[in-house]
Amino acid sequence: MSQRYHYLNGAVLPAETASLYLNDLGILRGYAIFDYFRTYGRHPFRMEDYLARFERSAAALDLSLPISPAEIAEQVEELIFMKQWQPGASCGFRLLLTGGYSDNALQSLAPNLAILTEDFNPPPVSYYQEGIHVLLKDFQRDLPEIKSTNYLRALQWYKELPARQAQDLLYHHQGLLSECSRSNFFAVVEGKLITPKSGILYGITRKVALELAQDLMEVVEADLSLEDLARATEAFTTGTSKQVVPIVRIDDKPVGNGRPGPKTRQLMAAFDALVSPLQKKHTQ
Amino acid sequence: MSQRYHYLNGAVLPAETASLYLNDLGILRGYAIFDYFRTYGRHPFRMEDYLARFERSAAALDLSLPISPAEIAEQVEELIFMKQWQPGASCGFRLLLTGGYSDNALQSLAPNLAILTEDFNPPPVSYYQEGIHVLLKDFQRDLPEIKSTNYLRALQWYKELPARQAQDLLYHHQGLLSECSRSNFFAVVEGKLITPKSGILYGITRKVALELAQDLMEVVEADLSLEDLARATEAFTTGTSKQVVPIVRIDDKPVGNGRPGPKTRQLMAAFDALVSPLQKKHTQ
Repeated sequence: MSQRYHYLNGAVLPAETASLYLNDLGILRGYAIFDYFRTYGRHPFRMEDYLARFERSAAALDLSLPISPAEIAEQVEELIFMKQWQPGASCGFRLLLTGGYSDNALQSLAPNLAILTEDFNPPPVSYYQEGIHVLLKDFQRDLPEIKSTNYLRALQWYKELPARQAQDLLYHHQGLLSECSRSNFFAVVEGKLITPKSGILYGITRKVALELAQDLMEVVEADLSLEDLARATEAFTTGTSKQVVPIVRIDDKPVGNGRPGPKTRQLMAAFDALVSPLQKKHTQ
Repeated sequence: MSQRYHYLNGAVLPAETASLYLNDLGILRGYAIFDYFRTYGRHPFRMEDYLARFERSAAALDLSLPISPAEIAEQVEELIFMKQWQPGASCGFRLLLTGGYSDNALQSLAPNLAILTEDFNPPPVSYYQEGIHVLLKDFQRDLPEIKSTNYLRALQWYKELPARQAQDLLYHHQGLLSECSRSNFFAVVEGKLITPKSGILYGITRKVALELAQDLMEVVEADLSLEDLARATEAFTTGTSKQVVPIVRIDDKPVGNGRPGPKTRQLMAAFDALVSPLQKKHTQ
C-alpha cells in the first residue's frame, strides 16, 4: 500500500502516526460528526456541498470548525498533491470533527479536526449489473440530518447480511421508509420517482440524482410507505461510494421483475455521463 | 497533576501517550462500549459486577474481549499499584472496548481494549444537601441496556442546563420515564419506592440501592409514568459517581416539598454506612 497522509489539527502526518488520545469525546461519548466525499481522478466531486453539510453538522452539535471550509478545501488539495497516484485511481476523503479532549469525559475546550485520505474501493460490478438485496429494519436514526459517527445499529446488523445474501439495510419506522444504512432510497411507484423527504440524511448524491432524474420522469420528495413499496416497480439507492445502485429484492420479495429497472438504468447512465468526463480529464 | 497510566492492548502507558489511530471503528462509527467504576481509597467497589456488565455489553455487539474479566481485574490492580495516591483519594477506572482498526471504516480484525485511570471528582456537596434539578426530555436511548459510547444527545442537552439552573436530564418516552442521562431514576409514590424496569441501563449502584432500600420501604421495579411522577413525594438518582443524589425539582415543578425527602436521606445514610468502612480501611 502506498504511503497515505492525514491532516490532524493543523499538521499533515503519515496515516500510521495520526491518532487521538483516549480522552477525546468522540471516542468516549460518540460526540463527533464526519463527512465523506470522493474524487474522480484527482478531482473532488461536489466538495463544496460536502463541506457545507459538514459545517451544518458541526453547528448542530455546537462544535466550531477550527479552520474554515475554504481552508479545509486547501488542506484537501494539499493531501491530493501529496498522494502517490496510480493511473486512473480515485480516492476518498473523510472529514472528522470530534468533541475534543476532555478532563471529565463530558466537556472540552476545543474540538479535534481530521481529514483522512482513504483508498477508494468502488462496489463490485455486480451491484450495477444485477442490483442488490436489502433487508428491512424497523429503525429511525436519531438526529438523522446530522452526519454523526453513530452507526452502531448498522454495523451490528451488517453481520446478518452474508447469511441472508443481502448487501444493505433499508430502514422504516411507523410505516414509513427513510433510508438505507449509509445511502438514500428511491422507488418508482406508478411511474413516479419518490424519495423520502424527512427522517433522513440529505445526501449529496441524492441531490444530484434528483437533478438528473427531472429529465427522465416525474420526481417527488414525499412520504413513502411500506404500502407504496409493495407497489414499486423499481428501486435504487444513492450514495457517495455507490453513485446509483439498483435494489432488486427487499427482504424476500423481488422489486418489479427482480432486475434493474429501465428508469434506474437511465439514471445510472446519466450519472455516468456526468462523472466520466471528470475521471478522464484528471487521469490523462 | 500526578502521572497517570492507562492500559491499552496489553501495555501500560503514561496517559499522555495512550492513543488510538484514526481508523478505529469506535472513532469512525461509534462502535464501542465502555464501563466505569470507582474506588473507595484503593478498593474498587463492586468491580466484579461492572466487569460482568462490560462483558455483556461486548457480547451484545459481537465484540470479544481480548483478555478475560479476571485478567482485566489484574490490570486494574496493576494500575492501582502504579498510581501516585494522595491521602484519602479515590479514583475512577474507565473500561473501553472499540470495534478496532479498519481498512474500510466498516470491518476490523480485532477490537481495541483500554483501561483508563481517571481522577475521581465527586459531585459538589450541595447535590447531597440541597438536591438537584433535572429537565424532562422526550427521548429513549437506543439499545439502552448496552453501555455504548453514544451520549450525543446528552452532551448536546447539557448545554441547556446552566441557563435553566438544572444539573441533569430525565428521559421519558410515550408517557413512561426511563432514566437520567448517566444514572438511574427512583421516585417515592404513595409510600412505595418505584424505579423503571425497562428501557434503561441496569446500574450497579441501582442494584445496590434496591438492596439497601428493602430495609426501609416497599420497593418495586415497574413502569413509572409521568402521571405517577406528578404524585411523587420524593425522587432521587443513583450512579457510580453520584451514589444517591436527591432530585428536588423536575422542570419547574418541585418534588414533594422541594427538599431531599426522608426516605431518600435514609437511603443516602445506608449507602454511606456501606462504603465508609471501605474508604477508611484503604486510606489508613
